[in-house]
Amino acid sequence: MQEPSLFTKIITGAIPSHKIYEDDRTVAFLDIYPVVEGHVLVISKTQIEFVWDLDPQDYAALLETVRLVALRVREVTGKPYVAQRVIGVDVPHAHVHVIPFAQTADLYTPQRNDRAPDHTALAAMAEKLRF
Amino acid sequence: MQEPSLFTKIITGAIPSHKIYEDDRTVAFLDIYPVVEGHVLVISKTQIEFVWDLDPQDYAALLETVRLVALRVREVTGKPYVAQRVIGVDVPHAHVHVIPFAQTADLYTPQRNDRAPDHTALAAMAEKLRF
Repeated sequence: MQEPSLFTKIITGAIPSHKIYEDDRTVAFLDIYPVVEGHVLVISKTQIEFVWDLDPQDYAALLETVRLVALRVREVTGKPYVAQRVIGVDVPHAHVHVIPFAQTADLYTPQRNDRAPDHTALAAMAEKLRF
Repeated sequence: MQEPSLFTKIITGAIPSHKIYEDDRTVAFLDIYPVVEGHVLVISKTQIEFVWDLDPQDYAALLETVRLVALRVREVTGKPYVAQRVIGVDVPHAHVHVIPFAQTADLYTPQRNDRAPDHTALAAMAEKLRF
């Protein structure tokens, strides 16, 4: 058996998170180091390194949750654009970034993971986004 | 009737492109200003500004083509990672970027659209990627 990833620990609740959505195959929660307020991570409950190696059903479920989250985030934040990113070099567990933004420059703000997450602001945003 | 977008002109063939895949709902072709060699754009045949506003069937078809293209691009280029991006601020026609890469720095190379595309190299890459 492989070691549970950081994201598997979030799925099981071993690590707390600001969840906004969950179904049989996927979970969505706030990135604790948001590029922009309302930055969400959508993950597959299947622990596999790359999105591309999910079976077609798990992949389709993951991307359908991304769609729902993008629509929700756009509605709640009022931002005109919602970016989506798959990169895959950090946590080896299939995940997709969903980031609402108003101007392209916002997207290129580096993630500030050198300071403690603002859990009060994150909890308030999760409360607004949850569906 | 809305004006045909740049991508609709590519779909109809009014503007030539280096296509690698096509089905009833989607088309994949090379970005003529690749961030990295093998940078592909996957578009919906439905002309609508944002991916998020496609109907669920068109959206699912678009993302299934993205999955097939990502697997194909990874196999052909031998790159370990395949990034995917939805941004949505340039061409107002739903599209997804698929970019194979070896190190994160490659991803942050700015797109060089200040010089003429290298159509010989693009045609050779399309020939390798086509499926």
